[in-house]
Amino acid sequence: MADLPISTNPFDDDKLREECGVFGVTGMTSAANFIALGLHALQHRGQEAGGIVTHDPETGFASARRFGLVRDAFTSESVMNTLPGEIGIGHVRYSTAGSKGATQIRDVQPFFGEFAMGGAAIAHNGNITNADALRKELIERGSIFQSSSDSECIIHLMARSLQRNIPERMKDALRRVEGAFSIVAMTRTKLIGVRDPLGVRPLVLGKIGDGWALASETCALDIIGAEFIREIDPGEMVVIANGEVVSHRPFEAKKSRFCIFEHVYFSRPDSSLGGRSVYETRSAIGVELAREAPVDADLVCPVPDSGTPAAIGYSQESGIPYAMGIIRNQYMGRTFIEPTEQIRNMGVRLKLNVNRALIRGKRVILVDDSVVRGTTSRKIKEMILDAGAAEVHFRIASPPTAWPCFYGVDTPQREKLLAATMSEDEMREHLGVDSLKFISLDGLYRAVGEAKGRDSKSPAYCDACFSGEYPVAPSDQIEKGFALKAAE
Amino acid sequence: MADLPISTNPFDDDKLREECGVFGVTGMTSAANFIALGLHALQHRGQEAGGIVTHDPETGFASARRFGLVRDAFTSESVMNTLPGEIGIGHVRYSTAGSKGATQIRDVQPFFGEFAMGGAAIAHNGNITNADALRKELIERGSIFQSSSDSECIIHLMARSLQRNIPERMKDALRRVEGAFSIVAMTRTKLIGVRDPLGVRPLVLGKIGDGWALASETCALDIIGAEFIREIDPGEMVVIANGEVVSHRPFEAKKSRFCIFEHVYFSRPDSSLGGRSVYETRSAIGVELAREAPVDADLVCPVPDSGTPAAIGYSQESGIPYAMGIIRNQYMGRTFIEPTEQIRNMGVRLKLNVNRALIRGKRVILVDDSVVRGTTSRKIKEMILDAGAAEVHFRIASPPTAWPCFYGVDTPQREKLLAATMSEDEMREHLGVDSLKFISLDGLYRAVGEAKGRDSKSPAYCDACFSGEYPVAPSDQIEKGFALKAAE
Amino acid sequence: MADLPISTNPFDDDKLREECGVFGVTGMTSAANFIALGLHALQHRGQEAGGIVTHDPETGFASARRFGLVRDAFTSESVMNTLPGEIGIGHVRYSTAGSKGATQIRDVQPFFGEFAMGGAAIAHNGNITNADALRKELIERGSIFQSSSDSECIIHLMARSLQRNIPERMKDALRRVEGAFSIVAMTRTKLIGVRDPLGVRPLVLGKIGDGWALASETCALDIIGAEFIREIDPGEMVVIANGEVVSHRPFEAKKSRFCIFEHVYFSRPDSSLGGRSVYETRSAIGVELAREAPVDADLVCPVPDSGTPAAIGYSQESGIPYAMGIIRNQYMGRTFIEPTEQIRNMGVRLKLNVNRALIRGKRVILVDDSVVRGTTSRKIKEMILDAGAAEVHFRIASPPTAWPCFYGVDTPQREKLLAATMSEDEMREHLGVDSLKFISLDGLYRAVGEAKGRDSKSPAYCDACFSGEYPVAPSDQIEKGFALKAAE
Amino acid sequence: MADLPISTNPFDDDKLREECGVFGVTGMTSAANFIALGLHALQHRGQEAGGIVTHDPETGFASARRFGLVRDAFTSESVMNTLPGEIGIGHVRYSTAGSKGATQIRDVQPFFGEFAMGGAAIAHNGNITNADALRKELIERGSIFQSSSDSECIIHLMARSLQRNIPERMKDALRRVEGAFSIVAMTRTKLIGVRDPLGVRPLVLGKIGDGWALASETCALDIIGAEFIREIDPGEMVVIANGEVVSHRPFEAKKSRFCIFEHVYFSRPDSSLGGRSVYETRSAIGVELAREAPVDADLVCPVPDSGTPAAIGYSQESGIPYAMGIIRNQYMGRTFIEPTEQIRNMGVRLKLNVNRALIRGKRVILVDDSVVRGTTSRKIKEMILDAGAAEVHFRIASPPTAWPCFYGVDTPQREKLLAATMSEDEMREHLGVDSLKFISLDGLYRAVGEAKGRDSKSPAYCDACFSGEYPVAPSDQIEKGFALKAAE
Repeated sequence: MADLPISTNPFDDDKLREECGVFGVTGMTSAANFIALGLHALQHRGQEAGGIVTHDPETGFASARRFGLVRDAFTSESVMNTLPGEIGIGHVRYSTAGSKGATQIRDVQPFFGEFAMGGAAIAHNGNITNADALRKELIERGSIFQSSSDSECIIHLMARSLQRNIPERMKDALRRVEGAFSIVAMTRTKLIGVRDPLGVRPLVLGKIGDGWALASETCALDIIGAEFIREIDPGEMVVIANGEVVSHRPFEAKKSRFCIFEHVYFSRPDSSLGGRSVYETRSAIGVELAREAPVDADLVCPVPDSGTPAAIGYSQESGIPYAMGIIRNQYMGRTFIEPTEQIRNMGVRLKLNVNRALIRGKRVILVDDSVVRGTTSRKIKEMILDAGAAEVHFRIASPPTAWPCFYGVDTPQREKLLAATMSEDEMREHLGVDSLKFISLDGLYRAVGEAKGRDSKSPAYCDACFSGEYPVAPSDQIEKGFALKAAE
Repeated sequence: MADLPISTNPFDDDKLREECGVFGVTGMTSAANFIALGLHALQHRGQEAGGIVTHDPETGFASARRFGLVRDAFTSESVMNTLPGEIGIGHVRYSTAGSKGATQIRDVQPFFGEFAMGGAAIAHNGNITNADALRKELIERGSIFQSSSDSECIIHLMARSLQRNIPERMKDALRRVEGAFSIVAMTRTKLIGVRDPLGVRPLVLGKIGDGWALASETCALDIIGAEFIREIDPGEMVVIANGEVVSHRPFEAKKSRFCIFEHVYFSRPDSSLGGRSVYETRSAIGVELAREAPVDADLVCPVPDSGTPAAIGYSQESGIPYAMGIIRNQYMGRTFIEPTEQIRNMGVRLKLNVNRALIRGKRVILVDDSVVRGTTSRKIKEMILDAGAAEVHFRIASPPTAWPCFYGVDTPQREKLLAATMSEDEMREHLGVDSLKFISLDGLYRAVGEAKGRDSKSPAYCDACFSGEYPVAPSDQIEKGFALKAAE
Repeated sequence: MADLPISTNPFDDDKLREECGVFGVTGMTSAANFIALGLHALQHRGQEAGGIVTHDPETGFASARRFGLVRDAFTSESVMNTLPGEIGIGHVRYSTAGSKGATQIRDVQPFFGEFAMGGAAIAHNGNITNADALRKELIERGSIFQSSSDSECIIHLMARSLQRNIPERMKDALRRVEGAFSIVAMTRTKLIGVRDPLGVRPLVLGKIGDGWALASETCALDIIGAEFIREIDPGEMVVIANGEVVSHRPFEAKKSRFCIFEHVYFSRPDSSLGGRSVYETRSAIGVELAREAPVDADLVCPVPDSGTPAAIGYSQESGIPYAMGIIRNQYMGRTFIEPTEQIRNMGVRLKLNVNRALIRGKRVILVDDSVVRGTTSRKIKEMILDAGAAEVHFRIASPPTAWPCFYGVDTPQREKLLAATMSEDEMREHLGVDSLKFISLDGLYRAVGEAKGRDSKSPAYCDACFSGEYPVAPSDQIEKGFALKAAE
Repeated sequence: MADLPISTNPFDDDKLREECGVFGVTGMTSAANFIALGLHALQHRGQEAGGIVTHDPETGFASARRFGLVRDAFTSESVMNTLPGEIGIGHVRYSTAGSKGATQIRDVQPFFGEFAMGGAAIAHNGNITNADALRKELIERGSIFQSSSDSECIIHLMARSLQRNIPERMKDALRRVEGAFSIVAMTRTKLIGVRDPLGVRPLVLGKIGDGWALASETCALDIIGAEFIREIDPGEMVVIANGEVVSHRPFEAKKSRFCIFEHVYFSRPDSSLGGRSVYETRSAIGVELAREAPVDADLVCPVPDSGTPAAIGYSQESGIPYAMGIIRNQYMGRTFIEPTEQIRNMGVRLKLNVNRALIRGKRVILVDDSVVRGTTSRKIKEMILDAGAAEVHFRIASPPTAWPCFYGVDTPQREKLLAATMSEDEMREHLGVDSLKFISLDGLYRAVGEAKGRDSKSPAYCDACFSGEYPVAPSDQIEKGFALKAAE
């Protein structure tokens, strides 16, 4: 799209990125306003575009899909008044795994389909790993796709199901689908939530007055004042109608494999996972890291903002003072509008500035959440040295990211991942820092609450990005030539 | 202006706000790009609108003034290409003290005037306390004002000066002006910087290659890669032409009275003032506060983001762990676009969320930079208690704000200031917290480096907002009925 | 759509409106530019929105669909550069017969479908009279509709065809379709044009250099400098590939029934139909009208702009001087952007003004093309009398419009048509004019070249809006309760 | 301004253009709505930008100045609601004679000034021929200009006047001014109209209910339903307050010299001048032209739209049938938004199309209002011949335009005027037509009602563009080297 802003955020290329957040509500007057608030709270899961679908008995289904942040795209009276009703769902997205090039508005979810028994809309967080094969088959049978999104398969599979009601059609459809999915869907009267059998992506249930809400994270319940009830189970489908929540188990039971990176980076620090705040888990990672990789230094500084909780933990465990050595420009947002070449080249300086007077002459431990391509880490190291630091030690709150994610996270191709081609020592040299240490996979498991570390026979989490062990075979990717890790 | 976004930021009403940032550069190809970057770094000093004026020998003066953030308003090729030249100045603003109601684009600086010997543009940070009287006199003599800004007086006084060159006309004009001003101005070939005799507002000089820059704060030198040379002295005018900086002293010498609130809140933590980072000063305020007002508790949490450095200092001095108990939504920005009533009413929740799982059952010390009206403090207290905190103790990194500022800071009328009408104990009760303590004025002076505290005979800073002692009589305000503090 | 302008054009409600124009080109570098020009020339056939699809071997299909006039929506470099390729089609539209309420962008054509053997796009002028039944059947079989447009049925029927190539699939699809259609379609390499068996709507073929063009009217060939070759025959499909035009006859042969209202009002006066300029035909209608309905008067004035050619003919035949008694404001455009109530109420005055000094005391013959609801005619009469005319005589260049059109023209419901409920005399009284005469149906046939008038056994044109004789049964409408004319 | 649309209208370069229209109203609720309507009716006098100033006792003066057509810029509730009050003035403009390059919003009138006794706003149609000299003098005395407009001098002269009220200050100012001006101005309570002593530009007075209106033309009275009372006299100032119109005569009496080109082209055909409709005058010019320059032919065709009335007159006098041989695209508007190169090059075809089937083989008389550069005439001739016309005869409804206008009309420099460098015969050859005839200056005077033709001793009109006889010496131009016509 010619009119999309160019991102100049230097970190955008150097982070794994969650691709979607979903939210739904039923039984609430002006549901769309609650959805907008919920999506605003989930904005960190997708900043490119968003959509809301609602249903009102008088005016039927209404939909608005727009580029931009929720605070801009989904708050004006003129937009929100077009979305009446007490039930609705919403979605924020970064980009679909399948799309080449820029997003088009037709790729923005929720997707809607009119079936013989009425309409349904769905919003999907995750990625369907056999979407290419499904799409090919559906097109051959006469389905017309409107988007390049893997998620659209689900609605076409539903349209062709012979089941008589929509929840049953959705079960039919999802049994054909492989991969990771947390889905929020709706009919005229039902709000539906589903997680894939492994429960890779999060989905939680909340209650607000007589209404119910489904959300990717608890922080989206907090913003609307909803009470957190429970997480949707892996492999569970809940159908909410007439104020009642009914639970279904449409899939064969499997051991869950929740995404461990949600703890490391994706989820918001004020969300809770398994009863503990994500902030505390990240702080605990810092504690583990201080034990595994101590170093003598003057200051512990986070790479803002995602390194902050682990840096606080590292400081508390090590006794080395915590300080804000790097300041983030809060007016950066994600993008500059078509900046000039000169401005574009300023890169990291537009976003960060070193606290020069503080850093000068100091031995500094920098704590970051992850190293993906390593391009940002190098720039930050240069900024810190340029400001006169005596030593720079990197401590990373996740193991080396050596494998791409195919379950709804935007990762570079494998050869672009620094850890896929270099040892820890080579990376240290490449980054030009005095020391570089990643937390171990066992250390990470301990921090998230597995006291014995990782059970290599049956890991409790999906950690494919670190281990290369994919719990669901990425069949479309294998078809395109992706090489799985050789058996050891 | 009908098309200005409505601010729903609950903090906007409950902070003192710096009203302007200024920046200028000379001797740099594509000066406008450097100015845009500098203004971006100074965005915290004014978010409503900005302007840039440049001069190119071939095409003359060019000007662009726009509402919105620099990253949106002053980065596109289409705007920046209209601003050619190697010399230029810029301005970001919140609102002028004199304006009633919303800002109009004609109020946005820099202001430009065509004089008999050529054009000049000026950008002003501060406030002229005798502007009403000057304006009345100028209109009576036939000047036509285009704005409601106090700063426009300067350019009319310059137009009527009988001096033969622009720097001399500026001296003439500024000698008629009372109040606080840090000014960056330009002619076709000269970049000019001036600070009022008391040096109330900051202004610094930097060098970049063969060029020079003037900026409100050092962080704006950092972003363009300029080296910090020195602060402009109170009462000094520098005229930069042909690569040379010439210093003038147009005013009678006075003891300087720099704004102490720049240390507390206005300046960016990564700027340096008097050779020390603002971050360190704020952390030192937290240390003083911990000494003055200790309390037994489980966690020290900042009110984000401005309370963070003092909270870190408080934690380090007290030994009570520092934690992020309140998380700020980084996608909030300053505004929602015309939100619906329902969204508007969400107020503080749109911006902040309590880390519920972390806070539950804890005794929490909340560190904030200041209390103005107290409205936000009450809401935050409610959020924290609602999340299950056992106790809430407020510690404030500045003394009670009991007097309005008339030197370029947006403050409520005196009767709206909580500290103007209540004692500390009444405030504690009003806020409904377990304890409330402000740093003492002496403690603040110690933290900014005055080991002996405040010299009440001859204070080193302007602290009128705390003390009610105004170093320059606010004559327009007195004319309108403002009552100075009674002599003791 | 909340952001669509409100039309205040008083005539919009009082005219029959052509709903679409189509255009396609192949073998031309930068095809999209030619399409934009062609659509600009066809803008009178649809002003609400337009779309262009092109195909380029390197980048595949590209599409842009936008609200607004072609001159605004499809001329900027930023849009046109997204539409590369040497083949493409375009569409301008008013509104689909099927839509309730406002158009959504998803209703804007061309429609695109990805089939197993590649993609195709189609643009449709006309209306499918069995679209509701087809849609129901397709949804039951699992098709998902994206629009409320009747035209989308065609692409779904094509998707489900078992034929191996796209032209054959289109034949399959169109054999299921009833109603009126002139279609321009494209694959990666083929430009396709089709007219329904009765040839209700126009479609012409032109040649430009080595390329070919298809257009609703010849004026769209003129604007790109193409030579008019011939009209596509009723029931013909042309497939243009590799510079060759191949003709197919997929339908059973029928006697053609071209829309006679294209002569009266829809087509542009500088287009030619059957070898004669539409202007001349309209002038000939005026001549017939002067013979059928003479009256003694001082001036013949057109109701601008559509009454002008007939008024010239009337003047020339009658010898009564032609004069511009009513002046149209050329800056009216079609719409005012959200005007205030007061402006909205000005209605006809915003668009027309009477030449008061000219009209005063005169007996005036006003020539208009048609009377639909009669609301405008009343207002014009009032304006003329208010300006001091002595007498007002209406002469209408078409017979009374007593029946709605179901073949791609926007008409009010039958009960809103003045002629459906009143005799000519009652209408004269209702309008309050000195005399009112419509041309006879025979007179109209004579003017369009049928020397013997209308052959009531086998009329040469579709004249259902005048006669109530529908050449294709409007089956969806009958299902909804529309009563056909009783057999006489 | 980077965001102004590029005009691709081929005629824009080949017409003299009126530069302004003015309108004012007092005593009307929601005055701004009436002003918007009046300016809409005057849009032909200036399409680039417009402005409205109103005054309301409670909220004071309000102003809105915007680029674009009135129908877009001044009709939305959101704009109009910012303009409360019962008194106000407005202005539409093309461009000021003095501006180099593109218009800036600061050049858009009305101009407003705050004086010691209150504010005043003025809107000016015409041109001040000694503006450069006045501006220089005012700047030297300390006035600061905000625009590049000649009209701004008036407000500065008023600001410096020693008179005690605004009408007297305006008299003071206008006595210093040379050139042509019709001015509408306002204070908080008074609506003021003035015409220069020669009355070069028009200004009329109307009454509506208890309110009064001033307008450039009567068509702007018609649109708001006001009754035409009289023309303001040359040299007259009317001051309207409390429902009363008081007439002043501030200037020395002179013989009037109204612009004859207002009859030929500038004024709308439905306005009346001197009691006769402009349409009738133009038709009478056609009659004179048919007498002066008859030719044997088949059709008389206007060059649309401005040649239409003269063509009708020519046809009626000559007996040769009138026909619409060239059709104007009514969706052209004035501009395409940043069109691609290819679209830009289509030039005249975007706007006009020849009625090929009608023109083929015919001898055609083309009637146009004027020839300026001749560029358009050549393109039209080519289109007509390309369509197969047998002969092309140009008849021009004004004498050869050989001199630039300095009284508020946008004309090319003298050397660009075809008639300044060629004889009629050379022009005929240059245009490549079978014959070319201009109406004589005497013929034109007869058509406007001077039965004896032009009185060369004391002409009744300003006809400097034809005769080179300037009734007011263009002193700024002479200073810049413009050579007046040599005395004969």
